[in-house]
Amino acid sequence: MYLRNCWYVAGWNYEFEAGALTARTLLNEPIVFYRKADGGWVALADRCLHRFAPLSRGRLEGDDLRCLYHGLKFAPDGRCIEIPGQDAVPETACLKRYPVAEKHSWVWVWMGDPALADEDLIPPAIGLDDPAWTFGSGQLDYEANYRLINDNLLDFTHLTYVHANSFGAGPEWAYTRPNITRLDRGVRVERWVEQPNSVKSRPAMRPDEADGYTAYDFLLPGVLLMRSASYPKGTAAALDRKPPPADMAPLTQTFTSQAVTPITDETSRYFFSWGPPAGEGSRELADTLMGIAGQAFAEDKAIIEAQAAVIRRTGEAGMMATTADAALFQFRRIMDRLIAAEAEPARSLAAVTDR
Amino acid sequence: MYLRNCWYVAGWNYEFEAGALTARTLLNEPIVFYRKADGGWVALADRCLHRFAPLSRGRLEGDDLRCLYHGLKFAPDGRCIEIPGQDAVPETACLKRYPVAEKHSWVWVWMGDPALADEDLIPPAIGLDDPAWTFGSGQLDYEANYRLINDNLLDFTHLTYVHANSFGAGPEWAYTRPNITRLDRGVRVERWVEQPNSVKSRPAMRPDEADGYTAYDFLLPGVLLMRSASYPKGTAAALDRKPPPADMAPLTQTFTSQAVTPITDETSRYFFSWGPPAGEGSRELADTLMGIAGQAFAEDKAIIEAQAAVIRRTGEAGMMATTADAALFQFRRIMDRLIAAEAEPARSLAAVTDR
Amino acid sequence: MYLRNCWYVAGWNYEFEAGALTARTLLNEPIVFYRKADGGWVALADRCLHRFAPLSRGRLEGDDLRCLYHGLKFAPDGRCIEIPGQDAVPETACLKRYPVAEKHSWVWVWMGDPALADEDLIPPAIGLDDPAWTFGSGQLDYEANYRLINDNLLDFTHLTYVHANSFGAGPEWAYTRPNITRLDRGVRVERWVEQPNSVKSRPAMRPDEADGYTAYDFLLPGVLLMRSASYPKGTAAALDRKPPPADMAPLTQTFTSQAVTPITDETSRYFFSWGPPAGEGSRELADTLMGIAGQAFAEDKAIIEAQAAVIRRTGEAGMMATTADAALFQFRRIMDRLIAAEAEPARSLAAVTDR
Repeated sequence: MYLRNCWYVAGWNYEFEAGALTARTLLNEPIVFYRKADGGWVALADRCLHRFAPLSRGRLEGDDLRCLYHGLKFAPDGRCIEIPGQDAVPETACLKRYPVAEKHSWVWVWMGDPALADEDLIPPAIGLDDPAWTFGSGQLDYEANYRLINDNLLDFTHLTYVHANSFGAGPEWAYTRPNITRLDRGVRVERWVEQPNSVKSRPAMRPDEADGYTAYDFLLPGVLLMRSASYPKGTAAALDRKPPPADMAPLTQTFTSQAVTPITDETSRYFFSWGPPAGEGSRELADTLMGIAGQAFAEDKAIIEAQAAVIRRTGEAGMMATTADAALFQFRRIMDRLIAAEAEPARSLAAVTDR
Repeated sequence: MYLRNCWYVAGWNYEFEAGALTARTLLNEPIVFYRKADGGWVALADRCLHRFAPLSRGRLEGDDLRCLYHGLKFAPDGRCIEIPGQDAVPETACLKRYPVAEKHSWVWVWMGDPALADEDLIPPAIGLDDPAWTFGSGQLDYEANYRLINDNLLDFTHLTYVHANSFGAGPEWAYTRPNITRLDRGVRVERWVEQPNSVKSRPAMRPDEADGYTAYDFLLPGVLLMRSASYPKGTAAALDRKPPPADMAPLTQTFTSQAVTPITDETSRYFFSWGPPAGEGSRELADTLMGIAGQAFAEDKAIIEAQAAVIRRTGEAGMMATTADAALFQFRRIMDRLIAAEAEPARSLAAVTDR
Repeated sequence: MYLRNCWYVAGWNYEFEAGALTARTLLNEPIVFYRKADGGWVALADRCLHRFAPLSRGRLEGDDLRCLYHGLKFAPDGRCIEIPGQDAVPETACLKRYPVAEKHSWVWVWMGDPALADEDLIPPAIGLDDPAWTFGSGQLDYEANYRLINDNLLDFTHLTYVHANSFGAGPEWAYTRPNITRLDRGVRVERWVEQPNSVKSRPAMRPDEADGYTAYDFLLPGVLLMRSASYPKGTAAALDRKPPPADMAPLTQTFTSQAVTPITDETSRYFFSWGPPAGEGSRELADTLMGIAGQAFAEDKAIIEAQAAVIRRTGEAGMMATTADAALFQFRRIMDRLIAAEAEPARSLAAVTDR
């Protein structure tokens, strides 16, 4: 059900207080996070080996973690290094350790085989501290399986119906189809939007007298990286609706990094940042965008949780595909193939490599 | 578990606002209701064909219903008539449609084979707008399987113990047995009550110096239609406790229509009206009766939900039958036989007809 | 999963109001308790034979109990003695009756074969009315299986980590091991504590200039009876850490009776009393101890419920034993062997006797 050999966002780096233990659940697994004195990250199974008390209720002793039920102590690599009142500690006494990395302002955790963890596989999100951009950020919890949120992000026809007010999205989003490109670990979705905003008060989204161009990569396991830009009216037609060249300066642009992380089978966490290029007035604009996003993401949450409630009651079998599902199905196929490959251990490494 | 080929009460007609979508769940199935411009009723599966979003969060466009997730549009007969951005709509793209009828102030929905839906099978309740009567009405939600509520309504020995205060019911209800007649689609339960009310303040129920006669039909799938009347003291004995002739004028009388609808396996909705014949003072009397009913039905809800909680914990096997269960078992046999017949499709129509 | 042929604490005797019905659930079984006019205790299945309404919502009629759904009446021995409106009552119509005994201020109920109920098997707790002691008492509900609470009480290494502040427990509790003796129906755990309290403000627990000696029996199904005493500094060494002789007068001492009762598989109730010998100032001291216990038992509840939540999510398999688990495993072995013996009815009596 889950792809394990990949990096999941465990949280924004600012959620993890220095010197403190932070408990998170990913893919049904309780994990405790902390940082060592040298700043290095530690992520261990949040379950003492002895009687299964959560270690996140424990105590840091230097770089080590002591369980505050019966006092077992663990090194940052998960090895049990003390059992109070007992001379020997079994050599096999070791907590599951998760590879963890801080990158692009997110804390990422590798849920699969540690030997395969490769930081180059972390999607190229843009961090909050990137000097070229001014971002707002946030997160939202869902009572829904993560795939329903991925699906939502892979089919923007919903903008016309779910986000007519918040994003001011007009009918074009539903009535035309984007260009979809298969990527190594995901899909690229690109489109021109030539209609004016349906809501006039949305200049923060795109000037009315302009053509919009949005392009996003949706990458394993559920990371959306999107640039939205506007160009002088007529640019789309002049370019025959091909992507704008890299050196064509946009009138305006924004960038958003988003990530979906499964907590349990029925709950998920959604992380997001959004903002314009750094510069005068960019903080005010980022704040405005966060206000719009707050409204829009609440709209997504309402419909997705309602959909999840129907699925819990009636099951998922029998959904009718439409042409709007193209990116969604491409992404699900990538995901399902990799999940299946992980289920065949002997062949899994080959399958991941020989994609 | 459920009888499908019959009409269930989905709600009071006044619950369904004109121009609005109303979501109801019956027999675990989410259904969306609305009315067309010509007043005609529509009841469709409340689940878009595409990604299973609830259509009750959608939008009426004339007589059509548009899903507000990705914009699919449906005609009142359930056919999908538009998929935005896609030229062709598959011919088989059709929502489940439920036959629906408004009658006797209730909105009824047929949960089985639409081809068998026959409005003549709607039980002859009396509507709130009947000029001969003055009714109050209401409803109550239960955390209990519908059969426990049916059982309650089929055995009035509980009046003595559950409703001594509210209805002022004396011991006669428990210590004598009613006459039970098998009907085509239910049972008839009739009895004389010659003891005075145990609560002196209940003249609204029956004058103390009178014989009471109550008769109700309990009809598939769970509809109670009851007339309670009083006659001069001694009438019961003079008639040898046979039913009063149709032309014998009662001192007082009331009529109540009640219906039990399964929502899920563990929740149900109970609808009720009650009142005296129309005339001077009948509104005040109907209000008084509603006050009494409010108390009494809360008593039922308390004991039935407590019973349901025990059954959830210990199961239902091993209940001990008593002679008070006669009507209850007759009704369950009718129900169980029809449910079994529905499970054998080839023979079901015959079984329903050849009852 | 449960040992049935033993006495469980259903509650403090002061919880059971005279003339009232008290509902309790033990081992998933709803039970109704009341006292007869002569003071004798009655415990019956809290489920009417007829339609499974809870009898705790019924009415006492003298020493008999009437169901307030359809009026069936039961004698204190569980026999149905009246079915209103029905001449004969089936001879087999009988509620499950539980042997019940009031002893040491607790109401005990025997959950197994009534023929085996033997009040001599009730553990020798000390009641609140014992003139030699001054006790405070209380109880706490847990969202945890009862065995996790038993485990906690069988391994006091947790005092160092869970109760450093409340009980002022120092490292000695974790770094030395108690003496454990197998008893007929449990284990005895004894130890000297020679280190001073870690919290100076805990003279109520033990004077700092003293050696402490604590000894408790932990008895089936989950009853802890503990005496904690202090002796002049050096006594432990002088006695070579053997138990103090019975005639050696302690400087101070306290006694605590504690009992763990399974409510459901995932909930439990924990009863406790604690106090010093009767005498001047003993009520104030008992109140002080109850304050400390309130803090300490909340600490236990927090860690045990957190542990229970982990186990609900990940299962219980794979816990790593330590030398601190000796008493815990001895007790579990006794319990498991008796539970297994009960599952083989023909051999169960022999097994219980031939322990």
